[in-house]
Amino acid sequence: MCYFIVLMSSLLFYNEAKKERTVVDKVFFARILKIVKIMVPGVFCKESGYCLLIAAMLVARTYCDVWMIQNGTMIESAIIGRSTKDFKRLLFNFIKVMPFISLVNNFLKLGLNELKLCCRVRLTKHLYDEYLQGYTYYKIGNLDNRIGNPDQLLTQDVERFCNSVVDLYSNISKPLLDIGLYIFKLTSAIGPQGPACMIGYLVFSGLILTRLRRPIGKMTVMEQRYEGEYRFVNSRLITNSEEIAFYNGNLREKQTIHSTFQKLVDHLHNFIVFRFSTGFVDSIIAKYIATVVGYLVVSRPFLNHTHPRHLRSTHAELLEDYYQSGRMLLSMSQALGRIVLAGREMSRLSGFTARITEIMKVLKELNSGKYERTMVSQQGGRDRITLVPGSGEIIHKDKIIKYVFEHTPLATPNGDILIKDLSFEVTSGTNVLVCGPNGCGKSSLFRVLGELWPLFGGRLTKPERGKLFYVPQRPYMTLGSLRDQVIYPDTVEDQRRKGTFDKVLKEYLDHVQLGHILEREGSWDTVQDWMDVLSGGEKQRMAMARLFYHKPQFAILDECTSAVSVDVEDFIYSHCRTFTCLHLFYIAITQETIAFGS
Amino acid sequence: MCYFIVLMSSLLFYNEAKKERTVVDKVFFARILKIVKIMVPGVFCKESGYCLLIAAMLVARTYCDVWMIQNGTMIESAIIGRSTKDFKRLLFNFIKVMPFISLVNNFLKLGLNELKLCCRVRLTKHLYDEYLQGYTYYKIGNLDNRIGNPDQLLTQDVERFCNSVVDLYSNISKPLLDIGLYIFKLTSAIGPQGPACMIGYLVFSGLILTRLRRPIGKMTVMEQRYEGEYRFVNSRLITNSEEIAFYNGNLREKQTIHSTFQKLVDHLHNFIVFRFSTGFVDSIIAKYIATVVGYLVVSRPFLNHTHPRHLRSTHAELLEDYYQSGRMLLSMSQALGRIVLAGREMSRLSGFTARITEIMKVLKELNSGKYERTMVSQQGGRDRITLVPGSGEIIHKDKIIKYVFEHTPLATPNGDILIKDLSFEVTSGTNVLVCGPNGCGKSSLFRVLGELWPLFGGRLTKPERGKLFYVPQRPYMTLGSLRDQVIYPDTVEDQRRKGTFDKVLKEYLDHVQLGHILEREGSWDTVQDWMDVLSGGEKQRMAMARLFYHKPQFAILDECTSAVSVDVEDFIYSHCRTFTCLHLFYIAITQETIAFGS
Repeated sequence: MCYFIVLMSSLLFYNEAKKERTVVDKVFFARILKIVKIMVPGVFCKESGYCLLIAAMLVARTYCDVWMIQNGTMIESAIIGRSTKDFKRLLFNFIKVMPFISLVNNFLKLGLNELKLCCRVRLTKHLYDEYLQGYTYYKIGNLDNRIGNPDQLLTQDVERFCNSVVDLYSNISKPLLDIGLYIFKLTSAIGPQGPACMIGYLVFSGLILTRLRRPIGKMTVMEQRYEGEYRFVNSRLITNSEEIAFYNGNLREKQTIHSTFQKLVDHLHNFIVFRFSTGFVDSIIAKYIATVVGYLVVSRPFLNHTHPRHLRSTHAELLEDYYQSGRMLLSMSQALGRIVLAGREMSRLSGFTARITEIMKVLKELNSGKYERTMVSQQGGRDRITLVPGSGEIIHKDKIIKYVFEHTPLATPNGDILIKDLSFEVTSGTNVLVCGPNGCGKSSLFRVLGELWPLFGGRLTKPERGKLFYVPQRPYMTLGSLRDQVIYPDTVEDQRRKGTFDKVLKEYLDHVQLGHILEREGSWDTVQDWMDVLSGGEKQRMAMARLFYHKPQFAILDECTSAVSVDVEDFIYSHCRTFTCLHLFYIAITQETIAFGS
Repeated sequence: MCYFIVLMSSLLFYNEAKKERTVVDKVFFARILKIVKIMVPGVFCKESGYCLLIAAMLVARTYCDVWMIQNGTMIESAIIGRSTKDFKRLLFNFIKVMPFISLVNNFLKLGLNELKLCCRVRLTKHLYDEYLQGYTYYKIGNLDNRIGNPDQLLTQDVERFCNSVVDLYSNISKPLLDIGLYIFKLTSAIGPQGPACMIGYLVFSGLILTRLRRPIGKMTVMEQRYEGEYRFVNSRLITNSEEIAFYNGNLREKQTIHSTFQKLVDHLHNFIVFRFSTGFVDSIIAKYIATVVGYLVVSRPFLNHTHPRHLRSTHAELLEDYYQSGRMLLSMSQALGRIVLAGREMSRLSGFTARITEIMKVLKELNSGKYERTMVSQQGGRDRITLVPGSGEIIHKDKIIKYVFEHTPLATPNGDILIKDLSFEVTSGTNVLVCGPNGCGKSSLFRVLGELWPLFGGRLTKPERGKLFYVPQRPYMTLGSLRDQVIYPDTVEDQRRKGTFDKVLKEYLDHVQLGHILEREGSWDTVQDWMDVLSGGEKQRMAMARLFYHKPQFAILDECTSAVSVDVEDFIYSHCRTFTCLHLFYIAITQETIAFGS
């Protein structure tokens, strides 16, 4: 596994680097296609079934609409013709067809919603497979600084993207279908010139409007950037809330938040005014002149007295002809309007697509060992050496049970050097004590040992990752039952496979004097908010019970009993010694002397 | 300042406690009213101006619509009547009025967007005033566990709420206005019985649909809860990513995330199917039977040959009458449909309202010293005492410069006891050294001292909050220029007021051997991502320069030079001693002995 890094200078916010293109162009369609292939993996899957259902229902609805228009016209004729018999018959027809139309509409909604859900499930699963592979979920937040909020991306943005893409599918295919149908019907009714004129106007106005709307894309990107900065200063405040509280920095931070918010508000305000001025022209071109063109097209055969169509028509025939073609024309111009609107939606979708593409790219790069972040300024310092993450070599040897560091510098992911050159060896059978003040690099050493951080040079020989068990100072409690806490990260199936009975688990709890918790909770299957319900010392003892359960070859005890009282600590370590006989050894971190004085 | 706590037992997720009512009822309207009062503070403000603009534009648009219908009918008559002259005149009229209609529509959009923005600004500022008051931003995340993600609430949910509320304003007032107008016009055209029948049907169908839709509210709440749980497991993974990575717990966590996601997907699927079945009935009642009722109402005067209205009408008169009233009827049934739809939107809004109300309540309670969180299980432990947060007494004395702890227990906010009874005194002029292993409560002591954590008993006498300056191990760098880093949390104005020149700031930087940074960056106004650009040691030295700038009476040095090399450390402390002469004294935390061995 190797690491590459791209040095980035003078990066103020993580999201300023994301000068993402959100324009509707070739790149956008390539991206969408790539994601759609994930969401609809083959021809014979549930998703394509729903796509077909939607298309079928759209066609059915267009026919329903046409039927409704015709039936409506006939009902109106019956009313004007004062024919009660016809009116009753036609209204009864309408009532008969009603459930079918309602069914078509609701099947369409069902299809859309199910397709959205299916796409979301597929895309979510795909992203989680990448995200939860190896240590990627750790790296995305701790090594890389391109994605500020992966949780929001994985939950909210995936949902929005899927909704947007499915909506676009129906919003584009429905008017296209409609226009096709209406062109066919209108051509047979008033000849091909009429629809051709309308389509011609659509193309013409489309070109003008695309030109007019171009700044909107740029302004949307700006808006997203300012929104991103605003969210960033908010989450930054939360991340650093304790330090800021100690500094009494709330007024200073309020200033930062307010100025970032003001920048966003000013931009939004300008954007509203801009949209007002373009919207004025936009609606005149796309809506009103289109209507005028429509009237001109429809009126031609009527007003031209030499037109062959209406040479010998009676008034009633003229009427019916007008209301047939006139209404269809209305529907067609509505369909054209919807296509024009879909253009706006597409630029919205391109924003979501950019975000999804970004996380997919970052996850892929992290999985192949590449990360990007702002690095500590290199020049100026006397004691600096040039660092290349991943330039070190990790050798996995399972047979030789030892850890060998050879001329390895210890540095944080952003290139801050803690130890310039480290060489030492830990062989099987010896217990090692690592001590030093806070910040000297103890935990960093273990992060390198656990392969969480990249190696900046030298060589590290070690067994496979799984051989090392880490007992941290603030142990993590998973969501689940009491049993899950002891066997973490194993599942109940793993426990069964290993043949460890609950009785043995109880013994492990007794080793760390936590047997009373099982008695208190009553059952191994009690689910609690263990992070909050257990005290610091109880959590540390639970982590030791985990150690007894897993019986690893190597264990790192990272001040893991600092909150445990001294007598219980002795009791626990006496059990540890029993395990040491079983070829287990520890790398432990110092317990500093306890004192309190002036 | 006092603290109250509500004990909560067996709480698995923070959001399970939020069994929020999202029903549209009296409580909902009271809540909305309260928030609206914040957003529209008076009669003569910008917001009410925009409200008026919107209302005026809505009325104007209704008149425009009526004009368009009439003009359209006349154009159609001209076409059918084959009168080129009339057609040209009417079409020219349409073209003349076009810009005005477009202006009305775009002023309406402008008004809506500006109102949304204004409301967002007001509500955001109101919430920030509460959020950034005292240490509330710290307490919301660290003491309380009711609000999981305040940043999302403050940015995204506030925006959504404002959009939703303004949209509802226009979505309800527009059809109401329309219906009023159409009732007036239709009553004069076909008499009062027709519109009365339609309104009667609206009330009838409204009652049935409300009954039918009732489970939707409950299912929406469930959906929000499952979405919340899903987001919670995601952010939990990120918060604990390092521990999980050390435990190799990714597969176990994947299981948790997948099962939570599956629960959500199953619910969403059921919800879709449920909406399909109710939607079928819903659209038949609200849409199709409404149309049937409409036809019946309109047809009455035509089909009844004894009806006084059309006793002596010609066919052309019948026609024009029908198309006037018929089209208005169409518009009226559309308006009725929009009101029925607004009912659905209102239940969506009630969800947002619940969230905004929740954060407002929590902020208010935190500001008055009350918090809620899951507490460590009390029974069973031998060494437990009953704790009541806020039962301790804090006495502020500015004249006596000393800190006195009298029988104060030291406990974490969730009631985990670190020290049962603490009594000591720090007087002016003495430097104090606090030492002890990690987790023994050193930092907790300072959190109590800085009034971040509640006092669980005893008495604490201390000067005002601002007198104490804290120099942490991982110093916080604010967003801003190099100058902002040194004078934090002061602003440039504060610096000017204090009369500290940049030359003096440079001296402070030199005291901590950071003078080269100013030379490297070139100016005090250089803006950088200081958190990442400075190394750990440089950040610690910057924090010491801050200490020199602020010259506080008390300072806590919390292992604040652990990453600074020994010679530089000596150099810095020699300057500290100079300052000690100026009646400054320190509470310092131990530097443990540095060693590395086997």
